Amino acid sequence: MKVISSFVLVASALVFSSTASAQFAKPEDAIKYRKSALFVMQQHFGRVGAMANGRVPFDAKVIVENAAIAESMSKLPWAAFVEGSDQGETRAKPEIWTEHAKFKEASEKMMGEMAKLSVVAKTGNIDSIKAAVGAVGGSCKACHDAYQKK
Amino acid sequence: MKVISSFVLVASALVFSSTASAQFAKPEDAIKYRKSALFVMQQHFGRVGAMANGRVPFDAKVIVENAAIAESMSKLPWAAFVEGSDQGETRAKPEIWTEHAKFKEASEKMMGEMAKLSVVAKTGNIDSIKAAVGAVGGSCKACHDAYQKK
Repeated sequence: MKVISSFVLVASALVFSSTASAQFAKPEDAIKYRKSALFVMQQHFGRVGAMANGRVPFDAKVIVENAAIAESMSKLPWAAFVEGSDQGETRAKPEIWTEHAKFKEASEKMMGEMAKLSVVAKTGNIDSIKAAVGAVGGSCKACHDAYQKK
Repeated sequence: MKVISSFVLVASALVFSSTASAQFAKPEDAIKYRKSALFVMQQHFGRVGAMANGRVPFDAKVIVENAAIAESMSKLPWAAFVEGSDQGETRAKPEIWTEHAKFKEASEKMMGEMAKLSVVAKTGNIDSIKAAVGAVGGSCKACHDAYQKK
């Protein structure tokens, strides 16, 4: 059985809030939260990528749905890079906290590319979608290269 | 620095899709996905609950934002209860797969209560929000009692 449940979300995300630390009971929760949000995002983005690259048969509706969810998820992780969450079960490099402006820029680049993908997805043009997927992937890689421990 | 980035998401979620299993590369990914989505949801719902119950100072805007994100997150976990994901790092009881209609009903109850909370949040009425938080909590507990191993 296939039940399509559509939802409309009009929400705001706190990005880089100085009061973000108050949102998490402990640093471990912040670490778990950002990993969780990124994993959910990656799963949805991965479905778009798999179709864009021909590994899975193209389905315009599935691409639009998954790109929209990936876009909304892309807003969430950043507020969880709170002070004190550089230790523990994380590969986050200390530069995230010392190069705050550059890290913010990298995160905004990814959010921007994901937003573009979500728009481009609606055109149904596979070449445009493929290019937008590549741009998102590039922004993920750039940030991981700079701010994620190997 | 506090940057409020608002986003509008119009998306559809596949709930209980028979083809959902094709969405995950392996059962472990489905397990990790549903845990991740539920954790992100719980963090946002928890912020609403903390304000509704007076543990954190009431902030109408923060309540609306977090209730909206919790609502959107509430749609996601269900497609990940795929066949074969009853084993591994999960406390999911086998009844999820043998009592499919009842589990679906329990999930819809939670989604419904979360959607109500998101609507009620916009009224700014703390008593109504508190009642809606209680109803969400009840729906979480009922499903956990029935379908989550202790």
